[in-house]
Amino acid sequence: MKGLLLEIADAVQHAVEAFQGDPAEVVGRGADGAPSARIDRLAEETVLRVLDYEGAALNVLSEESGFIDRGGKATLVLDPIDGTHNAIRGIPAYSVSLAIGHERLSDVQEALVRDLVSGATYYAAKGGGAFLNARPIRVRPVDLKDLVFSVYLGMQAAPDAARIASQARRVRVLGAASLDLCLVARGAADLYYMHSKLTETKLRAVDIAGGVLIVREAGGLVLDLKGQELDMPLTSTARTDLAAVGDRRTWEALS
Amino acid sequence: MKGLLLEIADAVQHAVEAFQGDPAEVVGRGADGAPSARIDRLAEETVLRVLDYEGAALNVLSEESGFIDRGGKATLVLDPIDGTHNAIRGIPAYSVSLAIGHERLSDVQEALVRDLVSGATYYAAKGGGAFLNARPIRVRPVDLKDLVFSVYLGMQAAPDAARIASQARRVRVLGAASLDLCLVARGAADLYYMHSKLTETKLRAVDIAGGVLIVREAGGLVLDLKGQELDMPLTSTARTDLAAVGDRRTWEALS
Repeated sequence: MKGLLLEIADAVQHAVEAFQGDPAEVVGRGADGAPSARIDRLAEETVLRVLDYEGAALNVLSEESGFIDRGGKATLVLDPIDGTHNAIRGIPAYSVSLAIGHERLSDVQEALVRDLVSGATYYAAKGGGAFLNARPIRVRPVDLKDLVFSVYLGMQAAPDAARIASQARRVRVLGAASLDLCLVARGAADLYYMHSKLTETKLRAVDIAGGVLIVREAGGLVLDLKGQELDMPLTSTARTDLAAVGDRRTWEALS
Repeated sequence: MKGLLLEIADAVQHAVEAFQGDPAEVVGRGADGAPSARIDRLAEETVLRVLDYEGAALNVLSEESGFIDRGGKATLVLDPIDGTHNAIRGIPAYSVSLAIGHERLSDVQEALVRDLVSGATYYAAKGGGAFLNARPIRVRPVDLKDLVFSVYLGMQAAPDAARIASQARRVRVLGAASLDLCLVARGAADLYYMHSKLTETKLRAVDIAGGVLIVREAGGLVLDLKGQELDMPLTSTARTDLAAVGDRRTWEALS
């Protein structure tokens, strides 16, 4: 289904680039009650139009509309714009995140994340490895003296987040989960750590379904905060913290 | 001198891109010599070639070569690649930073920062305002409940850095000083805070000469950590911490 995912990513990228209005304008509420920006709605409508045009028999689980039963056997898990706040404020880190799955994160078969700023395309198929612009990518073997961490920080982060950030040689934070996960997949970061105090800022399946498969297919691990392989239902309501690492020794070295 | 600065930025961007499609990826794989030196040197040689070709009577202060007396009255303060480590590791945040000045940061007359990932161009002339892709930009009036901070973090950050990061609603860190400054200038971030424990990781004139003028011309403040307007000599050896804010109330609210 790679061709369809690429077609969707291209269509969203064109729609976002051609958009002239105020991207921040609120146009309703998404599946979880959060305000939807015009740019989110525009991107989602673009995706649904491509699915209709191609006659794709896929259900959709989207940040905006929740679950849409389109009579398919599989479901497209979709964040039409991951990093909406970045896009609105002018921080150059936002993406479209796509995954094909069924019931749970662990049964996702295929994933594509398009960085809408650089145009980079991350892709993975289960058992087939991970790719950046069609070239294979691998996580980076850890060098404990030269760690790069992406850590969720700020007033809603759990207290351990600042301590973990202080253990890295360098901290970089894009603030778009799919892109922070892809940094781990391509070996740019050793850890992406998300531990929020508040349920409503934890991550949803739509945010991470694509990036998680890409990390795993690049040789990395995506764990819950007890160190077990992360799994969650592909629903609008489930929320999670996580730690994605390129190398298990990075997880074991955290204190 | 805007035309010359644009010509230099275009030349560096072409050189980096021509190296291959994704400069980060390519340089990271470079085999001979230190990969960082390769991309920095390539970019610096490109700048010097443009200056020679145009017969520009400018001295150069560069990250790579230090001060080069070319018989000019003014000096081009140059970081050919700001965010070299990002470029090598694959983090999409690196730039070319250019400023025209004489002796001190406070006498910089003109500045241009090109985001080499997105292609965005930030430009300012003293007294003439700041621009992003030729459209005027302004800092953002503060909303203390919706702060976005870029903070230098990790094992070499001073202890107050984590505390300051915890006061923001959102934390984003690009890790390229010129681009983090430009986030403040365009209103994407409310604060860029750099306080390092180690002298050798503090910021140099070549890193910030461009971004500082752009922040100030966009209506923001660039302060030392006592809250005074930052100034420093335009030399290879001077190092500084800093706090750049869009609105003085953000600085006053820090605790």
